Amino acid sequence: MHQTSEKLALVRTLMEERGVDAYVIPDTDPHLGEYIPEHWQIIKWLSGFTGSAGTIVVTAEFAGLWTDSRYFLQAEKQLSGSEITLVRTDLTENPGFIQWLSKSLQSHSRIGVNGQVLSVSMFRKLKRMADEKKIVIDIECDLISPLWSDRPSLSREQAFDHPVSFSGIDRNQKLTRVRDEMVKQNVEFHLLTSPDDIMWLLNIRGKDIKHSPLLMSFAIIGMEQVLLFADEEKIPFIIAREFDKLGIVILPYEEAAGMLSTLRSGSGILISPASTSAALYSSIPGRLKVKEDVSIPARLKAVKNSTEISNLSGTMIRDGVALTKFFFGIERDKDLIPMSELSLTARIDHLRSLQENYLTTSFPTIVAYNEHAALPHYTATSETDTVISDDCILLVDSGGQYLDGTTDITRTICLGKPTGKQKADFTFVLKGMISLAQAVFPSGTYGHQLDILARKYLWEHGLNYGHGTGHGVGYCLNVHEGPHRISIKSGNDPSNIIAPGILVSDEPAVYREGEYGIRTENMLLCYEDEETEFGKFNRFITISLCYIDKSLIDFSLLDRNEITWLNKYHSEVFEKLSPFLEQDEREWLRLKTQEAGVL
Amino acid sequence: MHQTSEKLALVRTLMEERGVDAYVIPDTDPHLGEYIPEHWQIIKWLSGFTGSAGTIVVTAEFAGLWTDSRYFLQAEKQLSGSEITLVRTDLTENPGFIQWLSKSLQSHSRIGVNGQVLSVSMFRKLKRMADEKKIVIDIECDLISPLWSDRPSLSREQAFDHPVSFSGIDRNQKLTRVRDEMVKQNVEFHLLTSPDDIMWLLNIRGKDIKHSPLLMSFAIIGMEQVLLFADEEKIPFIIAREFDKLGIVILPYEEAAGMLSTLRSGSGILISPASTSAALYSSIPGRLKVKEDVSIPARLKAVKNSTEISNLSGTMIRDGVALTKFFFGIERDKDLIPMSELSLTARIDHLRSLQENYLTTSFPTIVAYNEHAALPHYTATSETDTVISDDCILLVDSGGQYLDGTTDITRTICLGKPTGKQKADFTFVLKGMISLAQAVFPSGTYGHQLDILARKYLWEHGLNYGHGTGHGVGYCLNVHEGPHRISIKSGNDPSNIIAPGILVSDEPAVYREGEYGIRTENMLLCYEDEETEFGKFNRFITISLCYIDKSLIDFSLLDRNEITWLNKYHSEVFEKLSPFLEQDEREWLRLKTQEAGVL
Repeated sequence: MHQTSEKLALVRTLMEERGVDAYVIPDTDPHLGEYIPEHWQIIKWLSGFTGSAGTIVVTAEFAGLWTDSRYFLQAEKQLSGSEITLVRTDLTENPGFIQWLSKSLQSHSRIGVNGQVLSVSMFRKLKRMADEKKIVIDIECDLISPLWSDRPSLSREQAFDHPVSFSGIDRNQKLTRVRDEMVKQNVEFHLLTSPDDIMWLLNIRGKDIKHSPLLMSFAIIGMEQVLLFADEEKIPFIIAREFDKLGIVILPYEEAAGMLSTLRSGSGILISPASTSAALYSSIPGRLKVKEDVSIPARLKAVKNSTEISNLSGTMIRDGVALTKFFFGIERDKDLIPMSELSLTARIDHLRSLQENYLTTSFPTIVAYNEHAALPHYTATSETDTVISDDCILLVDSGGQYLDGTTDITRTICLGKPTGKQKADFTFVLKGMISLAQAVFPSGTYGHQLDILARKYLWEHGLNYGHGTGHGVGYCLNVHEGPHRISIKSGNDPSNIIAPGILVSDEPAVYREGEYGIRTENMLLCYEDEETEFGKFNRFITISLCYIDKSLIDFSLLDRNEITWLNKYHSEVFEKLSPFLEQDEREWLRLKTQEAGVL
Repeated sequence: MHQTSEKLALVRTLMEERGVDAYVIPDTDPHLGEYIPEHWQIIKWLSGFTGSAGTIVVTAEFAGLWTDSRYFLQAEKQLSGSEITLVRTDLTENPGFIQWLSKSLQSHSRIGVNGQVLSVSMFRKLKRMADEKKIVIDIECDLISPLWSDRPSLSREQAFDHPVSFSGIDRNQKLTRVRDEMVKQNVEFHLLTSPDDIMWLLNIRGKDIKHSPLLMSFAIIGMEQVLLFADEEKIPFIIAREFDKLGIVILPYEEAAGMLSTLRSGSGILISPASTSAALYSSIPGRLKVKEDVSIPARLKAVKNSTEISNLSGTMIRDGVALTKFFFGIERDKDLIPMSELSLTARIDHLRSLQENYLTTSFPTIVAYNEHAALPHYTATSETDTVISDDCILLVDSGGQYLDGTTDITRTICLGKPTGKQKADFTFVLKGMISLAQAVFPSGTYGHQLDILARKYLWEHGLNYGHGTGHGVGYCLNVHEGPHRISIKSGNDPSNIIAPGILVSDEPAVYREGEYGIRTENMLLCYEDEETEFGKFNRFITISLCYIDKSLIDFSLLDRNEITWLNKYHSEVFEKLSPFLEQDEREWLRLKTQEAGVL
């Protein structure tokens, strides 16, 4: 019997015992973040599916995994042989599994779900359907814990201090700024559920999950005290003592819900429904006035302070040095050593790890060869690993977590001779990337307004890409950090304004299914430019430092301004990186960044 | 005693009699459209203010007019000497007068307003505030009718047929299409309150207001019948007979509310809250299922049919001929005859009126000299009228209603020698205008996504404009026609998709307060372009035909592609218009459209 079938049989037995007709398994953890610890990877344990987005629904007769087009191929493979059906869905506001439940369940049925790993937002969508169909939802339904005998335990790694030399502002000042904002918003309490908000506020970092230096924790900020819910053993004594002076009280991780229920009657509390679990939300007593919005730390930390900005220039040099050594190494070794996607992944991760202040990768490194590069979220596995050969396209999307910043950069290179189509695609992507990088826009401009700048040249040639153009980036925190982004899916909310001090990625792309993919990505920092009679205007500065493969550029498609941008960028790359390179690397980079295309 | 004070005293007497603490006077009519008949111009009657946007609030101690920056100067002048205070507000979602009422009124106060001229949307905003403050709203409070003794009566002009040779689709087919859509939306009835929806559906036009060929009417579409609420005497017999065959029943204008209350219990009815009055809405019985959305005719008529599109090419030629004769005349006569904004307004309106199929202007013609052109909504009056002199900027924004289409076009010309700043401003506006006109975009693109194309070059030079970039245009109907537009204020609603067949204006601008204003506006028609592996793509074709003043262009700021666009456009303008011009006009236009700027 297939392992998954055995597990499903056990789940169904528990469902029957509990009177549950459909069991919903979301893909997240109690903090509803992007990268989740093994302990919470229930979908992987049950089905073998390792994609980062999906929902499983189990009924007596059916078991299905709902996921989107990024994961169709992967899910097909990983689910094959199991009795779990792949249900193709898209990333719309209305999750497909809710519609399916609405059609498949009878009135007065019962849906079970572990409310600890279901966001309030998702719970409300489920609830709306359930109410219409007179279906009951049991959000205290954890059927997995009793079954998962070899479940990985949660991390016991210690948190560490993130000193002001890196963070720029001490925790006391940050607390004051958050409390000032709480007063403006007329709330006495602020519930923080995203660990990155808490890390930023308390100037600490943790090691609880891959790719992001987070300590799994909740916090309730009050006007005098902060209640930090985390495993006490994971907070070093020296930090605990500092916390104590500032009225930051450490309480057991599990007690967040219990403490919420003791808050003063009539108080206002600010929560973020997208990152608060239904379980935690349900423990907020009715006598509190709940205000829902993006969290205050999320808004504040999006705008980088002057220390962070100044530190980042060093971070970007170290990151660029690692990348340069990596790409140099490929060209040097390509006819000497067989190289595969996996070996190159190990190589770039290793080169970054040698850099000062490095902690870890900021997301799973993507080294994608030819047709693999056409899958925007591809990561090589031992099954898909491919040896690099001549005349190929290689897309490398990678980033590091450093004590002084987080990086995210994509370069696409060609080994050998590119085709005309590849050069045209690459050049249209480059034009879009440059256009966004050069944007000038009035104060108050929303991210979605800038999206078309990166797409215009692609659209003019019948090309497009199916993802957003840019995401915010944390500072020694999540590589995908809100609330702003450059995407038409984001709206006219003040939190989506591209304001001076924010970081955002700039990553247009073209994906040719079965052939190759091209993406070029830099990080941009917004700064205040001139003020005229028409108001204040902002611009971007490109902070990522790595050459762009000129062999893939059709210079006849670039205009003078774009060529000037490229040559200026390349000269900056060479100037800033060359002092840290070996002689042969430096000479190689000199060629890669040599002035080109001048009319 | 000032006339306004006398009227206010009478209003206050009636307020007291009725126990009303604050009386609200909106700026609209029962159809909540843009141009309203004299009969409903209550604000003008009471205060003398003639701007098209404003709200008056009267209390025992205070009387204020809330209006936005477009009308500050005008309102100051027109209100001076009256006791009505100008309250400067902006065009946000939260009208300032509601906040003022919230602060100024005590609990259990009573607000009076004539619900016939208050939209459901606005009523809801008022109601939200009123409920919070425990204030009562009386929406059946018409205090003006008893006071306004010389009130202009409503028009008694007859409606007329809009034959299929112009409209493209007969009324029967249109009814079928609307009913098909009603079935999809699961409603048995559809309330139409915008006369332009009704004109389009029934292939008739009227003469009830200025600038738009509308018959003031309401309609309820059912599955077998259409109830048309209009003055029966205004429907010619021959049309009434045709209506009868199609089950279109003519009922008195006043009976719409009464008939609504008789509709079958449990039926679904579709209404548009933005164009439905609170009075009409309140007459919908609770036993109906109300669905709120953009009206079906609004969505359907936005996409022009092949007859309309093909007719428009002739309309644009006639409109362009009138404009060419107008601009030719200015240059010919400028040293011979004194010309003023008003005399030129009369001249362009007259030249248009000579064209075939012409009905009326499509909005109040703007001829604005130098600093007047810096006011986007300026129209000359006898007080502001200015004689045109040499070395000036002249902005002309005008349009016509023709049986075969509606036009809207702006040209800015220079008489004499422009300054370098004027040329730079003009050229950046032109670059934006051309960029939007040349846009290529995937099927499903929303209007707001394209907005930045028209602004990019202005932003790069610290310039901007405070209005949207483009509005939809009717076909022998409202010159400002929704639901789509090119503006960041519009969202990701399907009705805002720029789909093949829609018309939209393209009108970037620069306004230098106290100096001059520059706007260049063409109408664009969206059409389906190629389909690639990345989907379907659409483009625009520019349909307006009038030369662009080359003396205002700094050709060194244009790139090759823009120069090509301009020369191609100019050659098309000459080719299409010259057959209809006199010899001297033709030779003049040949020069105006001669190839220029070729590198």
